Amino acid sequence: MEHRGAPTIFDTVPLDALRRRTSQKWRRYPPDVLPMYVAEMDVPQPEPVVRAVSDAMRAGDTGYVFGPAYAEALAAFATDRYGWEVPVAGCRLVPDVMLGIVEVLQLVTDPGDAVVVNPPVYPPFVQFVEHAGRRPVTAPLTPDGRLDLAALERAFADATAGGRRAAYLLCHPHNPTGTLHTGAELAAVGALAEQSGVRVVADEIHAPLVTGTDTDTDTGTGTSTGVAGRPLPFVPTTTVVPSAIALHSASKAFNLAGLKAAVAVPGPDAVADLARMPEIVLHGVSHLGAIAHATALRDCGSWLDDVLSGLRSNQHLLADLLAEHLPAAVWTPPDATYFAWLDLRGVPAVRDGADPARLLLERGRLAVNPGPTFGAEQGAGFVRLNLAASAATICEGVRRATAALT
Amino acid sequence: MEHRGAPTIFDTVPLDALRRRTSQKWRRYPPDVLPMYVAEMDVPQPEPVVRAVSDAMRAGDTGYVFGPAYAEALAAFATDRYGWEVPVAGCRLVPDVMLGIVEVLQLVTDPGDAVVVNPPVYPPFVQFVEHAGRRPVTAPLTPDGRLDLAALERAFADATAGGRRAAYLLCHPHNPTGTLHTGAELAAVGALAEQSGVRVVADEIHAPLVTGTDTDTDTGTGTSTGVAGRPLPFVPTTTVVPSAIALHSASKAFNLAGLKAAVAVPGPDAVADLARMPEIVLHGVSHLGAIAHATALRDCGSWLDDVLSGLRSNQHLLADLLAEHLPAAVWTPPDATYFAWLDLRGVPAVRDGADPARLLLERGRLAVNPGPTFGAEQGAGFVRLNLAASAATICEGVRRATAALT
Ligand SMILES: Cc1ncc(COP(=O)(O)O)c(C=O)c1O
Ligand SMILES: Cc1ncc(COP(=O)(O)O)c(C=O)c1O
Repeated sequence: MEHRGAPTIFDTVPLDALRRRTSQKWRRYPPDVLPMYVAEMDVPQPEPVVRAVSDAMRAGDTGYVFGPAYAEALAAFATDRYGWEVPVAGCRLVPDVMLGIVEVLQLVTDPGDAVVVNPPVYPPFVQFVEHAGRRPVTAPLTPDGRLDLAALERAFADATAGGRRAAYLLCHPHNPTGTLHTGAELAAVGALAEQSGVRVVADEIHAPLVTGTDTDTDTGTGTSTGVAGRPLPFVPTTTVVPSAIALHSASKAFNLAGLKAAVAVPGPDAVADLARMPEIVLHGVSHLGAIAHATALRDCGSWLDDVLSGLRSNQHLLADLLAEHLPAAVWTPPDATYFAWLDLRGVPAVRDGADPARLLLERGRLAVNPGPTFGAEQGAGFVRLNLAASAATICEGVRRATAALT
Repeated sequence: MEHRGAPTIFDTVPLDALRRRTSQKWRRYPPDVLPMYVAEMDVPQPEPVVRAVSDAMRAGDTGYVFGPAYAEALAAFATDRYGWEVPVAGCRLVPDVMLGIVEVLQLVTDPGDAVVVNPPVYPPFVQFVEHAGRRPVTAPLTPDGRLDLAALERAFADATAGGRRAAYLLCHPHNPTGTLHTGAELAAVGALAEQSGVRVVADEIHAPLVTGTDTDTDTGTGTSTGVAGRPLPFVPTTTVVPSAIALHSASKAFNLAGLKAAVAVPGPDAVADLARMPEIVLHGVSHLGAIAHATALRDCGSWLDDVLSGLRSNQHLLADLLAEHLPAAVWTPPDATYFAWLDLRGVPAVRDGADPARLLLERGRLAVNPGPTFGAEQGAGFVRLNLAASAATICEGVRRATAALT
């Protein structure tokens, strides 16, 4: 299994250098396991971020965070990339996206209230909702990974029964499917939420990672060249749902999970609600995290473009490899995120109900995220693969998967 | 006002370099204000920490935290400095001390339960307790800053009325007074807490910052040389109160507030309780924070010793300056922390009930922490000054204070 395309940014860090990293991706499993799980990218850090963090350390600039620099950098990035005016004065820094979601949920719901989520979905959504003393209510995506209005309508009715407050935790773009919601979908869902009295909280951490173009939408072949088309637009939730609150962060797109920070952005009708977030929340925000994130958003646009074209290339590579070597796997390259949500239900070894992630780990020494962690029902027979990796790793991953599953 | 002592580590970063820092201490006020508030130190970062963070950034080691490195570094440091065996396997990483406290309070109390605190105390104690849906109950320190058993007994009775669970949030050493609790005090308080069914949660973030020696204890002169005596021991709460849970962090002693991380350490009888902390809490922990903190605890002992001797020198300097220029200020150098909790109630300009911090800021362009934020009653007429500063800054601070108050 070999790759003959042009090298991308993902081909620049050798595997032995990656294995010296001390983060979860490289340390949870023994070295004979190839890690293609967890949301860390196999990329070099953009130079301006390395420099900004190193300079701050050298200057002893290691005290408490202060000021609007991160929100301002997000605003400039959002204007440039999404044509979106972020209301800087209304924004609030939060320790990270998940803790920011918890703080926002505490503003718009009471203990015991329901929070609607769309499985299959990023597992911490349910875990943090429960830890915050709220009740997850599920409205699964449709089988092709789109928002399901009928399921949402039922879930909103359940969530608000007895006149309780409720929230809807939207993942946009969606992890793990990589679904990029359209403006029309957001408008329909937002109208339903407003009508039901449900507040929309949108996790938009993957917004910078839109890979889809208008030529490969709906082709479903996974092999279109993509590069020729115009990039699909990311439509910020708050531009369509004015009462929504969105969470943004540079941590996924710029591989800064280890330097946590995030920004909560209010829609035009949510400014007063977000202003009720206690000042003390700022205490949990890392100054170095904010410096790193702001620098990434401000100075690393071409690095991000390299990541996006590398991801498109990797999506095509995976589609080709699967077609050739593991045709029973069902997958269409998504419009966003660096994940591949693989449907392995048609693979003979999986058909008897075996968890494919376990087969891949035990037989293939390949670590992926098990589908059922994203939703027991919706994820059964699926795995999530991380495509922010070299072509060599993707080839080796498919080789191991093929050997393990056939 | 001039200082003629030997320069310390606090005299190594020029004021104009400090003013280029972008953290809260240097950015909240305009440049004509001299900042001697907020818990940031005017020191160079220890070289090993600068290098470890810069190297991790350059290696792209910016993913999710993993493994026991931070707890192991804390354990080695604790053995060396306190003669204390930290149970590494029972420790849990938390995002920072305050968020760790909130997580621990959620393990040992229910919503609406009481948490006892000792004003004057670090303001976030009350703010986070309230934000976590718990009820602060106060047991003020004695006028000379010691734990008050009688006040605690009353508070514990109030806290547990109706058979409710309750916690006691101990600050050891105590911010802002710098009180170092003795083993005997901890034992008495612990016995009272166990007898009342109150769980002790000990914030030990200032533990590495014990400056007191056995020669200057109880002299109350503020002018003993100190250096000749043996350092006072820090007695870890969990060695005296087995059911306690303690929070440790390198962030205060090594000036890493901007790179957040902390460790929750269970007493021998609290291991099972701490094990109930949800795994998801680890999500909020910064990998770069953990790298920085572990490096500080492991490789920066002589830097910390320089900080401690610099603080002793600064304590003597302040005592001398106050005796000479502002004799109405009452202060005894504390045994720990880099704070000076100044009693200005005897200063004529303050006697009419004016807040001295406001006078200092408005008339003296000197920023200090207002006493009442640590407890409206106990803090009236007090200010907290940050002595982790150059001799020149301390001299200039006293000059400004004297001008503002007389
Ligand atoms: C949808 C989503 N939200 C949040 C996060 C985590 O963000 P943070 O580390 O800022 O909480 C991730 C990480 O993969 C994610 O996929
Ligand atoms: C007693 C005490 N606890 C906690 C903190 C803050 O620690 P963290 O930033 O880890 O929450 C401070 C900071 O000054 C403090 O004095």
